Amino acid sequence: MIKALGYATKHSFTGLKPLAFEREEAGPSEVEIEVLYCGVCHSDIHQAENDWGNTVYPCMPGHEIVGRVTKAGSAVTRHKVGDLVGVGCMIDSCRKCEPCTEGEEHYCQGPNSWLATYNGPMKPAAQAPDGKNAYGRDNTYGGYSNVVVVKEDFVLKVPTALPVEAAAPILCAGVTTYSPLKHWGVKAGSVVGVVGFGGLGDMAVKLARAMGAEVTVFTTSKEKVAEAEKLGAKGVVEGDKVAYAALANTFDFILSTIPEKHKVDPFVPLLKRDATYCAVGALAQIPGYDNMQLVMQRKSLAGSLIGSIAETQEVLDFCAEHGIAPDVQVIPIQEINQAYKRIKEGDVRFRYVIDMASLKQELEAA
Amino acid sequence: MIKALGYATKHSFTGLKPLAFEREEAGPSEVEIEVLYCGVCHSDIHQAENDWGNTVYPCMPGHEIVGRVTKAGSAVTRHKVGDLVGVGCMIDSCRKCEPCTEGEEHYCQGPNSWLATYNGPMKPAAQAPDGKNAYGRDNTYGGYSNVVVVKEDFVLKVPTALPVEAAAPILCAGVTTYSPLKHWGVKAGSVVGVVGFGGLGDMAVKLARAMGAEVTVFTTSKEKVAEAEKLGAKGVVEGDKVAYAALANTFDFILSTIPEKHKVDPFVPLLKRDATYCAVGALAQIPGYDNMQLVMQRKSLAGSLIGSIAETQEVLDFCAEHGIAPDVQVIPIQEINQAYKRIKEGDVRFRYVIDMASLKQELEAA
Repeated sequence: MIKALGYATKHSFTGLKPLAFEREEAGPSEVEIEVLYCGVCHSDIHQAENDWGNTVYPCMPGHEIVGRVTKAGSAVTRHKVGDLVGVGCMIDSCRKCEPCTEGEEHYCQGPNSWLATYNGPMKPAAQAPDGKNAYGRDNTYGGYSNVVVVKEDFVLKVPTALPVEAAAPILCAGVTTYSPLKHWGVKAGSVVGVVGFGGLGDMAVKLARAMGAEVTVFTTSKEKVAEAEKLGAKGVVEGDKVAYAALANTFDFILSTIPEKHKVDPFVPLLKRDATYCAVGALAQIPGYDNMQLVMQRKSLAGSLIGSIAETQEVLDFCAEHGIAPDVQVIPIQEINQAYKRIKEGDVRFRYVIDMASLKQELEAA
Repeated sequence: MIKALGYATKHSFTGLKPLAFEREEAGPSEVEIEVLYCGVCHSDIHQAENDWGNTVYPCMPGHEIVGRVTKAGSAVTRHKVGDLVGVGCMIDSCRKCEPCTEGEEHYCQGPNSWLATYNGPMKPAAQAPDGKNAYGRDNTYGGYSNVVVVKEDFVLKVPTALPVEAAAPILCAGVTTYSPLKHWGVKAGSVVGVVGFGGLGDMAVKLARAMGAEVTVFTTSKEKVAEAEKLGAKGVVEGDKVAYAALANTFDFILSTIPEKHKVDPFVPLLKRDATYCAVGALAQIPGYDNMQLVMQRKSLAGSLIGSIAETQEVLDFCAEHGIAPDVQVIPIQEINQAYKRIKEGDVRFRYVIDMASLKQELEAA
């Protein structure tokens, strides 16, 4: 076993604290990774605070992991010691169902779905009918820790052209926005709306712009409108009825990154005929909507979940190629609870990224 | 002017009564049609009773019209006197906007949208800023009448293989279900759900079966399950949780024909990854939904409006070719108010069709 240290919470309300624990040694097809940076995703907060009612404690978040390979199992062929690698939201899947065999393991329909990097599997072994689940474990601990051990085919290559700390959020915020932009056919000349301008919105704008789209950001404040303009997008303050009226029937695709429930009715009229409003952040009940608006121009409401492993590699490479990186603010892990507070209060436009070197002192003391 | 007689209502609550009125003579590109049969659509009731808040009175419904050409304007080339023809929901459109030029005039984005067969244009001339609208009129009177005059390119050819009275509902119920089945790619081997089993549901099942799909009907009663089975479909009673659980992730497409608001949450889990739930009947506020369900397998909620003129001709020909016709019950126009009552109370599985010969006595008396 590997002695490990991370930050975890044991209850929904206590905040994160250091937790010493053990990880299994890397098996033949696994790699051991020294975590260098880990992004802070809004989902981390939802999970730590049990907003979805499925949290298994202790909960050690972190699914935007960048690190260096320190050991490779005997059968590993894709990665070698010293490689800069990434781990996103998943560390395994059933590999047998239709989505898995079609390379969409993020939609795994196996008995326990995909294995989440933290708080996975969805159904703890102890609660499964026969005390077992597909992955043989009750919980997983994420990247708010000094070391992770992951099956090689769920480990991404991080291009050297990317700033190391900024690569981390690409593994969730990046692929979560890249995948729907691609799926709904965004290309040069597309007219794209991005609703919400936090960590996901930032990536959505940068990616859509790099794809050649004309982008409008819907955000909460005039200050953020100016930020959007810096990225080559237009900005509209949410609820500005005059601006909305002028934008009726103009969008090929609208991507909502709002991480909470929100009304879709104000945005549906802005879609062109046959266009889609896709909400990726709101894992929540959406308020009632006017179906007449969908009917009148055959419009759709949709959702999308992160992205596949192949797409995750694609977006890392795409970012490196186009010189795109998330706006990040690097923090020591000791500031994680304040960061959570700030994310919940304001809406932070950049992504917090934990510099895992900050764990060193505590590791030595442990 | 042509002296005409129809059934109309002057208020939302008074029911339909005979109304003598005049129609313009057919212009060069128009045909005059003696109405033989007119289907009764649930929309007729919504419109007559001002459920959508946009009814212009007097309101003379009827947009499932089958009749015989009695006059053809000098420039008419598509139809001749004596032809059996049909008129559906539209009698004109702007002909200039993107949808119109792409042959989707039912999504016309012109200044007054398409011209509805009755209660059209959407914006009465009297209420338009300059007292005019694109069609120069305040209201249109539909097919609950002895004669209509329509531009030839909005007039369909009714194949002689179809029973005349049964052809009428194809012009709305038929195309409203045919268009989304085609748009979402239903073909041989597709697994299709049909929610609601009235006039639209009946057509949806027959069309999807003729396309080679495996069809399951979700309906309100065991009796209707037996009816569904007669059409070669499976039947499930709405809300049967055991049946729903067994159908999780199995549908390529679900078409909801429920003509009222209804919860979509019970049906979304039944869709396959990337599949769509399309509600064509509910021109209403849909209650809140769980976006997590859309996200987890990239599912969509959509709407669809009737179909184009080309699709209306297609579905008439398709029905003739496949020996499909709606189940109809022919009534005299004097029974229209009772028919409305029955449609609102029970859910009638067949389509009422008015035999316009029943107007003859009143015409002679007038």
